[in-house]
Amino acid sequence: MQDESEVAVLRYGHRPGRDDRMTTHVGLTARALGADRVIFPGNAGQSEETVQDITGRFGGPFDVELTDQLDATIRGWDGHVVHLTMYGERVQDVEGDIREAHREAPLLIVVGGEKVPFEVYEHADWNVGVTNQPHSEVAGLAVFLDRLFEGRELEQEWPDADRRVLPQERGKRVVDAEELEEGS
Amino acid sequence: MQDESEVAVLRYGHRPGRDDRMTTHVGLTARALGADRVIFPGNAGQSEETVQDITGRFGGPFDVELTDQLDATIRGWDGHVVHLTMYGERVQDVEGDIREAHREAPLLIVVGGEKVPFEVYEHADWNVGVTNQPHSEVAGLAVFLDRLFEGRELEQEWPDADRRVLPQERGKRVVDAEELEEGS
Repeated sequence: MQDESEVAVLRYGHRPGRDDRMTTHVGLTARALGADRVIFPGNAGQSEETVQDITGRFGGPFDVELTDQLDATIRGWDGHVVHLTMYGERVQDVEGDIREAHREAPLLIVVGGEKVPFEVYEHADWNVGVTNQPHSEVAGLAVFLDRLFEGRELEQEWPDADRRVLPQERGKRVVDAEELEEGS
Repeated sequence: MQDESEVAVLRYGHRPGRDDRMTTHVGLTARALGADRVIFPGNAGQSEETVQDITGRFGGPFDVELTDQLDATIRGWDGHVVHLTMYGERVQDVEGDIREAHREAPLLIVVGGEKVPFEVYEHADWNVGVTNQPHSEVAGLAVFLDRLFEGRELEQEWPDADRRVLPQERGKRVVDAEELEEGS
């Protein structure tokens, strides 16, 4: 289901074993930085489990899906499609247009693995480079989301979390939900 | 050598094999998003090679170092130390202070691997969380650098590059340095 303000992240391509951590990090970054769901290739079940586990403990709402129909998902998307690639237009040049377009329609952000076919470049409304330098699809996604949401994603609350990390100058402080309610 | 405006990234901890890609992505993200150098643990030689290879082709200046003295490097840093951790203070609350401090002294950004000892939390001038959610050290580093430099890192030039990617609406365009000079 898509609603107008939805932002989904689609991980294009996954090699089990070799890509597990990168795909998991794409999913966790999507969740932490304000996306509503992540769509993984059908062979990324291990990453799906990890992201669901984190969502169960640290809160949602956030959806994780597997699909064997990546191309059909992109083609059939009822909204705008952004493809993050080092070959694309500079994020600082197009982020304003994308933000404006997203006010009226859901946004699908495609994050490449190794090989993204030309059809994805063709179908995307924007091919966007977070720099035109080779670095990391996880880093590109993170900067893109932070700019798309203009930092508001950092204020997000996680109402159904089992546990919560409380910001600390030094050390670690994790509280469970009951403890939080008692303290308030 | 440290100069006043230097930003270095230190990867704390590395398990060869398992962490190669994450450590490499930390290094490439540091380079692409405006840091001056990255310091890897001594056993991350494969990541060092990859980052040096990319720097050779896509340009610098950017330095990659290996050290077996991670703790001594942090303790001996002549400037400010930021440790990125999901347990830390919220980036949006402290980034202004860090930016101001950096105007007068070099900045070392510590990016954790699996286990960061308490001494690092103690020694850091700021423990900073890019959200207090579990996601990715690469994503955290990327957002932190983009905020530290307020987007200016995206305008960076790479004068000694052998090749350059030219931003495109569709498809890929890579030119070599000679071609660029002929065209200008």
